[in-house]
Amino acid sequence: MGQKLKLVKNTAGRMVPTMVNGVQSIPFKGIGKYIPKGSKAAPPIRACQDFPTSGDKVVSSLKEALEKCKINNGMTISNHHHFRNGDLVMNQVFNTLSKMGKKNLRWFPSASFPCHEPMIQHMENGVIHHIEGSLNGSLGEYASKGKMNGLAVLRSHGGRWQAVQDGEVHIDIAIIAAPTADSFGNCTGDRGPSACGLLGFGLVDSLYADYVIVVTDNLVKFPCIPWQIQGNNVDHVVVLDKIGDPDKIVSGTTRLTKSPDRLYIAELTAEFVKAAGIMQDGFSFQAGAGGTALAFAIYLRELMKEAGVKARFIRAGSTKYLVEMLEEGLTDYILDGQTFDLEGVRSMRENSGHINTSPFTSYNWHGKGNFASILDTVVLGATEVDLNFNANVVTHSDGQMLHGIGGWQNCLFSKCTILPIPSFRNRIPIIVDEVTTLVGPGELIDVIVTERGIAINPKREDLIKATKRSGLPIRKIEEIKKEVDEMVGGPLEKPEFTNEVVGVVKWVDGTVIDSIFKVKQ
Amino acid sequence: MGQKLKLVKNTAGRMVPTMVNGVQSIPFKGIGKYIPKGSKAAPPIRACQDFPTSGDKVVSSLKEALEKCKINNGMTISNHHHFRNGDLVMNQVFNTLSKMGKKNLRWFPSASFPCHEPMIQHMENGVIHHIEGSLNGSLGEYASKGKMNGLAVLRSHGGRWQAVQDGEVHIDIAIIAAPTADSFGNCTGDRGPSACGLLGFGLVDSLYADYVIVVTDNLVKFPCIPWQIQGNNVDHVVVLDKIGDPDKIVSGTTRLTKSPDRLYIAELTAEFVKAAGIMQDGFSFQAGAGGTALAFAIYLRELMKEAGVKARFIRAGSTKYLVEMLEEGLTDYILDGQTFDLEGVRSMRENSGHINTSPFTSYNWHGKGNFASILDTVVLGATEVDLNFNANVVTHSDGQMLHGIGGWQNCLFSKCTILPIPSFRNRIPIIVDEVTTLVGPGELIDVIVTERGIAINPKREDLIKATKRSGLPIRKIEEIKKEVDEMVGGPLEKPEFTNEVVGVVKWVDGTVIDSIFKVKQ
Repeated sequence: MGQKLKLVKNTAGRMVPTMVNGVQSIPFKGIGKYIPKGSKAAPPIRACQDFPTSGDKVVSSLKEALEKCKINNGMTISNHHHFRNGDLVMNQVFNTLSKMGKKNLRWFPSASFPCHEPMIQHMENGVIHHIEGSLNGSLGEYASKGKMNGLAVLRSHGGRWQAVQDGEVHIDIAIIAAPTADSFGNCTGDRGPSACGLLGFGLVDSLYADYVIVVTDNLVKFPCIPWQIQGNNVDHVVVLDKIGDPDKIVSGTTRLTKSPDRLYIAELTAEFVKAAGIMQDGFSFQAGAGGTALAFAIYLRELMKEAGVKARFIRAGSTKYLVEMLEEGLTDYILDGQTFDLEGVRSMRENSGHINTSPFTSYNWHGKGNFASILDTVVLGATEVDLNFNANVVTHSDGQMLHGIGGWQNCLFSKCTILPIPSFRNRIPIIVDEVTTLVGPGELIDVIVTERGIAINPKREDLIKATKRSGLPIRKIEEIKKEVDEMVGGPLEKPEFTNEVVGVVKWVDGTVIDSIFKVKQ
Repeated sequence: MGQKLKLVKNTAGRMVPTMVNGVQSIPFKGIGKYIPKGSKAAPPIRACQDFPTSGDKVVSSLKEALEKCKINNGMTISNHHHFRNGDLVMNQVFNTLSKMGKKNLRWFPSASFPCHEPMIQHMENGVIHHIEGSLNGSLGEYASKGKMNGLAVLRSHGGRWQAVQDGEVHIDIAIIAAPTADSFGNCTGDRGPSACGLLGFGLVDSLYADYVIVVTDNLVKFPCIPWQIQGNNVDHVVVLDKIGDPDKIVSGTTRLTKSPDRLYIAELTAEFVKAAGIMQDGFSFQAGAGGTALAFAIYLRELMKEAGVKARFIRAGSTKYLVEMLEEGLTDYILDGQTFDLEGVRSMRENSGHINTSPFTSYNWHGKGNFASILDTVVLGATEVDLNFNANVVTHSDGQMLHGIGGWQNCLFSKCTILPIPSFRNRIPIIVDEVTTLVGPGELIDVIVTERGIAINPKREDLIKATKRSGLPIRKIEEIKKEVDEMVGGPLEKPEFTNEVVGVVKWVDGTVIDSIFKVKQ
């Protein structure tokens, strides 16, 4: 049904609600302009006398654990998404809650996946009031149609940490699915039949939730070494037969793009990084696990080898290609936020240079700095970019909300943010007059690489100068747009939107940068 | 001159003040009886826009860092004690504060050492109002005489975490001396010219202080791997020529006792652990770095080898002897709270089974359990034990406050707490009618091992039964006391105390278990 809300225009010129799911919200004020006040959230003080002296916190079932955590209607239940589409825990949790007759719960995952489609039924039945967290696939479609009782609140990985840390989202019960755990609740993601690499997305939940339940299918004798989640923050441990489907948690092999256009874009991106003088000894970069970003890393690796250049660190989403670079000595470290394939998991387990991180170290805007701004360059995707270099990752040009933000917004703070994107997809131009949804302000986006040329943000005179004589196809963004529009027969007609809000996009500081409106049927 | 305070009798029958340094304090209520209320302390929310995007937080001097941290009169300055008697940082910090004209500061170290004697001058001059933290050597003597403006507040390692976490002690500025750090403030203790092993005692300071300053003499390129303190909690980094005296931070070699009596006590202790059935495959133990505890570990090692028994983990204070056990495969892990010698430091750096911990994991009573109660046995020292097995570690029988608590109180929660102690020292009997200062209640102390026999707490019928036919010299504590008293010519005459309080001893839950009174001159 969407919500008809009082809207105000924020600094980016976007209309946003001042109340989001009953909470006063602050319109975006510009990058680095919102000054937070007050103190971090403070979980309740607990005492050892209320926990078994043996250290054994195992209880018999999810139901028993939830009861001991004083589950009640209206509470917020959280989880991390390191199991991706192979998660076998959260549907069981909400099925259990449904059987217990609980209602109006808020589900607060770090992301949802197609495997979570059963949550739609729980929303229909009132077990779940609404979901806050990245909505992918059919859950995104459901929310796009305004069927959810509350607004979708899309946050970056860093924004999720910030929201919990700052007390904007209070987690009553956190569920930590853990590939290996001990009975005290210490746990790790790097081993066990459901190994997922690391558990960094669940760290903030374990620190700030009132109650924390660890769910594992691989209980080891205390102590579980290494641990990324500390048992001292855990209330109960539940052992299930199987908590994840390994094939869907991590890919056995990573999928490289085979599209000649995308391979060309990836190669151009690597050439640009070299030409701009970024690829120097001791530099750092981040590239995601998308097909083009992966191909970029492979091209860059070759250029690094040719030039005899070694990176100090790679920020990842790790894949076998980055692992190979670590093992070949092309980087001192991988600072990893999530592992995308089995080689990433193996390397994290075995290589002391492959470090697990969390959104706190990497992305949280309300810390004393974070790693994102230290990176020399980052290579990201986008669904749309406009002539002011503003970009969108959450909606398509048809207005459907189909993707989460991930670490995308947080990464924009790198010293050189590059978006390698095809100039059109399915005959839909990617460079538009104005993005459907503003997710990243253009002032943070430095370079767009398409198969029709490279557009540099005019703000970055240094990059323009550095690459002037590179022989690379540097062009104006307007030129590329015109060429594509002419080819596909003019710019795409925009969908018509209602004035009903179905979701909001938070900026990294918790302010609201844009709204997602319901599309007219 | 000591303080005449309103005193009440606590559950242990000890007279304690209800106000400690201007803060309402709760008298000890019994083990596990005090129920904490409310929420943990919450540090202020900070934002990345106030920190350099380069990640480089290095400032030119301690003075500049302190100014940027808005240093003011009356503030609390904290530090960790991993540099022990080799610390070259804190005297510089307080000399700087003295030159800046600051007054009435509270120094909140995790422990002080003889090298900190210059702090007496700062107390005389009003730069430091008082010290809260373990007082050793001349600072202990100074406080014992009632010369400090505030009361000494003696806390265990776990109690210090609890006090900060619960907001009882608010740290304005934390100083983290770091053997290796990067310019962002990530730091580690396991390498560098001033390597001290780990930085666990400083972790709570970094999490809860308003401002955090890292001081290093070994700045490495970002990222400093591994890190135990996270740069995301650090405001400024200061680089000094030399922050520690390596010879005094860790011993080159560990000193084993050569006293035949103490060697015998250590051997008896190991035999007891075996006879009681504790030394089983997968068991765990903790032994400190004192001469007797070290010797115990060596005897136990031989018994383990003979029996083909392997430990699951050793909690430490690590030394070369424990490192050898790890390397020989006699234990899966060392869970280490502080490294006492160079071999401990090397092992922590090189061996993935040698894990750094913090008082949070090991000792904090106001967490969801801690590691201490999981241990099968712990071997500790004491200055006095009474007939009810109550024990003292902070004062001598002459009433002088000369030692800190360390992790001693926290360790008492192990499944079998053993105190191997000589029955007299310098002709002063160690078993007394009533301890001068109550630091550990007898109900948590299971066994006393002396050169005249082993006394088992009557509460522990299981241990009495298990060792009945062991051939070990099991005796009643009263018998041993009588024998010693007769030998040295009757029990020691007690010193006469004034009614002026010079310090208090906190229990692990923050309540006051005893007072230290000024001795009549």
